[in-house]
Amino acid sequence: MLYFASDYQEGCCPEILEKLREINLAHHIGYGKDSLCEKARQTIRKVCDCPDVPVHFLTGGTQANSTVISALLRQYQGVLAAETGHIAGHEAGAVEYTGHKVLCLPPVQGKVSAASVCSYMKAFLANDTNDHMVEPGMVYISHPTECGTLYTREELTELHKVCRSYHLPLFLDGARLGYGLAAPGTDVTLEDVASLTDAFTIGGTKVGALFGEAVVFPTPSLGDHFFTITKEHGALLAKGWLLGLQFEVLFTDNLYLRIAKHADDMAMLLKKGLAQKGYAFHPETFTNQQFPVMDDATLNELSRRVVYSMWEPLQGGKSVIRLATSWATTEAEVQELLASL
Amino acid sequence: MLYFASDYQEGCCPEILEKLREINLAHHIGYGKDSLCEKARQTIRKVCDCPDVPVHFLTGGTQANSTVISALLRQYQGVLAAETGHIAGHEAGAVEYTGHKVLCLPPVQGKVSAASVCSYMKAFLANDTNDHMVEPGMVYISHPTECGTLYTREELTELHKVCRSYHLPLFLDGARLGYGLAAPGTDVTLEDVASLTDAFTIGGTKVGALFGEAVVFPTPSLGDHFFTITKEHGALLAKGWLLGLQFEVLFTDNLYLRIAKHADDMAMLLKKGLAQKGYAFHPETFTNQQFPVMDDATLNELSRRVVYSMWEPLQGGKSVIRLATSWATTEAEVQELLASL
Amino acid sequence: MLYFASDYQEGCCPEILEKLREINLAHHIGYGKDSLCEKARQTIRKVCDCPDVPVHFLTGGTQANSTVISALLRQYQGVLAAETGHIAGHEAGAVEYTGHKVLCLPPVQGKVSAASVCSYMKAFLANDTNDHMVEPGMVYISHPTECGTLYTREELTELHKVCRSYHLPLFLDGARLGYGLAAPGTDVTLEDVASLTDAFTIGGTKVGALFGEAVVFPTPSLGDHFFTITKEHGALLAKGWLLGLQFEVLFTDNLYLRIAKHADDMAMLLKKGLAQKGYAFHPETFTNQQFPVMDDATLNELSRRVVYSMWEPLQGGKSVIRLATSWATTEAEVQELLASL
Amino acid sequence: MLYFASDYQEGCCPEILEKLREINLAHHIGYGKDSLCEKARQTIRKVCDCPDVPVHFLTGGTQANSTVISALLRQYQGVLAAETGHIAGHEAGAVEYTGHKVLCLPPVQGKVSAASVCSYMKAFLANDTNDHMVEPGMVYISHPTECGTLYTREELTELHKVCRSYHLPLFLDGARLGYGLAAPGTDVTLEDVASLTDAFTIGGTKVGALFGEAVVFPTPSLGDHFFTITKEHGALLAKGWLLGLQFEVLFTDNLYLRIAKHADDMAMLLKKGLAQKGYAFHPETFTNQQFPVMDDATLNELSRRVVYSMWEPLQGGKSVIRLATSWATTEAEVQELLASL
Repeated sequence: MLYFASDYQEGCCPEILEKLREINLAHHIGYGKDSLCEKARQTIRKVCDCPDVPVHFLTGGTQANSTVISALLRQYQGVLAAETGHIAGHEAGAVEYTGHKVLCLPPVQGKVSAASVCSYMKAFLANDTNDHMVEPGMVYISHPTECGTLYTREELTELHKVCRSYHLPLFLDGARLGYGLAAPGTDVTLEDVASLTDAFTIGGTKVGALFGEAVVFPTPSLGDHFFTITKEHGALLAKGWLLGLQFEVLFTDNLYLRIAKHADDMAMLLKKGLAQKGYAFHPETFTNQQFPVMDDATLNELSRRVVYSMWEPLQGGKSVIRLATSWATTEAEVQELLASL
Repeated sequence: MLYFASDYQEGCCPEILEKLREINLAHHIGYGKDSLCEKARQTIRKVCDCPDVPVHFLTGGTQANSTVISALLRQYQGVLAAETGHIAGHEAGAVEYTGHKVLCLPPVQGKVSAASVCSYMKAFLANDTNDHMVEPGMVYISHPTECGTLYTREELTELHKVCRSYHLPLFLDGARLGYGLAAPGTDVTLEDVASLTDAFTIGGTKVGALFGEAVVFPTPSLGDHFFTITKEHGALLAKGWLLGLQFEVLFTDNLYLRIAKHADDMAMLLKKGLAQKGYAFHPETFTNQQFPVMDDATLNELSRRVVYSMWEPLQGGKSVIRLATSWATTEAEVQELLASL
Repeated sequence: MLYFASDYQEGCCPEILEKLREINLAHHIGYGKDSLCEKARQTIRKVCDCPDVPVHFLTGGTQANSTVISALLRQYQGVLAAETGHIAGHEAGAVEYTGHKVLCLPPVQGKVSAASVCSYMKAFLANDTNDHMVEPGMVYISHPTECGTLYTREELTELHKVCRSYHLPLFLDGARLGYGLAAPGTDVTLEDVASLTDAFTIGGTKVGALFGEAVVFPTPSLGDHFFTITKEHGALLAKGWLLGLQFEVLFTDNLYLRIAKHADDMAMLLKKGLAQKGYAFHPETFTNQQFPVMDDATLNELSRRVVYSMWEPLQGGKSVIRLATSWATTEAEVQELLASL
Repeated sequence: MLYFASDYQEGCCPEILEKLREINLAHHIGYGKDSLCEKARQTIRKVCDCPDVPVHFLTGGTQANSTVISALLRQYQGVLAAETGHIAGHEAGAVEYTGHKVLCLPPVQGKVSAASVCSYMKAFLANDTNDHMVEPGMVYISHPTECGTLYTREELTELHKVCRSYHLPLFLDGARLGYGLAAPGTDVTLEDVASLTDAFTIGGTKVGALFGEAVVFPTPSLGDHFFTITKEHGALLAKGWLLGLQFEVLFTDNLYLRIAKHADDMAMLLKKGLAQKGYAFHPETFTNQQFPVMDDATLNELSRRVVYSMWEPLQGGKSVIRLATSWATTEAEVQELLASL
């Protein structure tokens, strides 16, 4: 069987496992206050080019999203997000569970536009009875988005500007950040992310780690009391050094971007092959998630050899599926998949 | 340096690391729906002698506590717990964050007695205005307790009976369960825990795993919808198989109890040595946590060679400290500690 | 000035004030446990033709909505509602504050159709990953809706049926229920509401009372522990008899429907007059809220003599406004309004 | 029967009813934005001698407490209160429902001492692991307390000072404030309350109003967004002018203090009479609530003629009962009660 269903099916990069084996019996103090975590924080600050910002390590994506969002909002506020945003539909109401409404914006290929934030805020501020409504208190975006698309630096800059003008912290969910940063054609760097957002995550779970999301607060005050808030959310790992270890390895010698680039390369190979065979994409993407449109007969055949994700049934016996590559995907696997079509 | 500060400073049993190395590159579906988790569930059901009960795997102790407690309570209910219970003081208000009050009972050496539950319930039910008060909806205990003490089978049976009579589910926090089950003199087995509680956790984090708590629901209906509730709490691990792997290894060939017994043996050695040197204990315990009383001068000296936890300052220049052994503690380390006093 | 901005600008029916004057100095026990509340409960059960159902009295509409919704849902569930539903946009996130998501359905003239519930549930149940999503746990509708429209008995019956088939309690927000029941052409009676929903409110605040909403649970078990839940929400009035008094007066001699019918008659007079003058309605309604479309010049003129609500700006210098009549509106006021156009 | 069970059994002062009758049919805009509320706000600011502070009107005491407390705390904080504080035991967990822990202090006759706050804070700040604990974020006191006792100006000043030094806002629950301000021997004035607290309530429900609590924020920034927070809690009254009306009447010509003084005078008459008959008090109080100790035989007899509250059963066939006077209690009623003993 070929496994293209998602990018979090394998364990971790061998480098991480090796390091874990090395220090498994060493003693570390708990809760991320150890030297490994501290080292990883310094490394991340350096690659993001933002010294002195708070960096925390959490275990998972939904956890990071709901913890950060609840930390940034006041009780009367909600979070603006694309209707297709992960927090809006696939986190079991984790944000609402913390008492906050997700205020939906119309997405453009999964993205939030500066214009849509602007027009939401204008309408809100112009509304005489807006004190009976949930006040937008921040903006949530994901990069890459849930459907694999990417912001350009210009788009992020515009968003940053409009958020700043309305005093809305901008939070970027980077569960797959590596695949976005390494994508062909992107002009967005990690330094850009750090300079154009107020808080963001660097996803480890889907990019080479066993688990783990680094939470970075380029606007440092937003990280106040985040340790206790993390504990309150049940999100504080006792052996926090496991997270420090993984991020330290991932950001040593550029490993994070190297493995992400490999996954993107494999995805581009797949994309090219599929296009040559006449498949359309919905939407077209340049990251590790590819969304080809296939008819039922093809899928029926494909499912004998390939594990993929059903994405969206279309009309006329066709469907969009998701094929995800990862740092562990080999060229042979891609070729075998293509050969089977 | 000798490390006796806590039982979660090392990584994991070599057996776990070895297994992880083996299957690191295999593909597993996400969120604990994989075959490894299923196998671990079956193994746990077997060792607990309760077939068909729901078993879930979470990442940490505070997380497990607040997720289970919020799942068991209705919105108008609170949880009865000892004042010294972990949920009452050291979880940053995680239970309250889910909207529920911790209703405190007076502890007896860290334990909740059936009598105290009974008298709380009698007073509550006799109160004419109890519909203006938080209704007790469950009982939380820990075994071993936060101060290392243990329930006897009779005490658990009494608690079980009184909880049953008041329709209060009994939840046992087993963050250090192994050290309790393996303690010299205890008459409480894992099967007892499973038959005398409605929900309990088997702690992995402090007993040989990298991280992980198994949540078992001997009263199966209490586990309804627990998967979604876990997701809602941000507590669902993407690569859930990491948890299944660890618990499967821990419950193969009795590893869990074997390593716990080793830790307890080391603690008994330590206890005996300290007693011979004239130290008192506060309280006396038979699990991996020892609480000797020492004077400031001794501690000053001790701190040069041993990392320990300050537990409680007493009057007259004395303090209770905590010395914790773990599955990784060696006899040589214990002897070295004793020799240094 | 003529006041048509809303239906809650005056105090209460003279009958209520008179009764209050009479018994102001009598002694009543607190929190709705007095004889007046009990009498009002009996009266409401009788007019609803549902003996023995729980009836509670709350102070306001948003309060009743969020208290009832949180009482009906389990923590992993959300409430289905029209996007235009009051709980979705104008209650400052009160439902989300209790930890639950409002799951939006596309409204048809402010109404939720059985078909839309059905198709939402079918899609939800067909979704392989719906255990990562908020489970719909109930349906919220309002009657009349926020834009003055009404369900027919057939529509309510269909909704009831589909809700029953998916085990979704149906909750009807009757903040303006009287104006709906008394509307010309409606075939929905109070008995219908009671037999076709699982919980509903009878709005007093907007229909003759100083304040107050009666909460009725035709499915009695849904009202379990509602007293304590009300207290927990800060929604329990100390002098609860004030609510009992008002509802007892309103449901004596059919007062509630009589005053509602008067308001509807005034609205129909207004509607007829506006139609004769060529104004369109958006939408057309048969209850006490009328939504005529007017151009800016007309509105400019109108605002000198009439207080109205701006509803929705349209394109081309036109707007929808709301003109609301109440039990206190006089025919002379309507005629004067019409004459001014 | 004589009614001494509580101070919220009657309706309202005749002056309020008269005013309500007068303006019942006038038109007022909703939600407390009307001129009556504005006037009442100005009046309250004046009598408190604190111009420009935010003043809001809520419906009930538990509602005011949980809304204010949740508005003042950040998510990782809890509220310090006496174990006997109303929020700790008799509000059905309303504070916890908003996600915050009530951190209990040992009461001295129902009061929180500056020393106990100080020692709690010192221990908290000295605790190495306090970032795993709920951070105290404010202090809650009641005046009079739940057992009728009063702070002296010196005690309030000390509390104010210690709260200021630890950056803890001080919130005073004034559900029975009038009876405290009018008590014989007190040196605390309304101006003192306003200058020594950061937020406080002026209770109307128990002191002459039908219902209503004024919330005053002497530290103005604490009132930011309180309107929307009130709505979010379901605590915003549609016909807010009803609250403005009542407080305007109560604070015109010193009515509030006059009726409170009358109640206190009646209580002192009762106290003197009871003392002469040899009854002890537990505790002794100088406000409208008296807590005499009586034996069972006496109570049995008393209950034939007097409605009282059972307070606390003592040993040896004795009990503490509560006898409460109100603005409506007459001297004849007190004499009749005394004569019956």
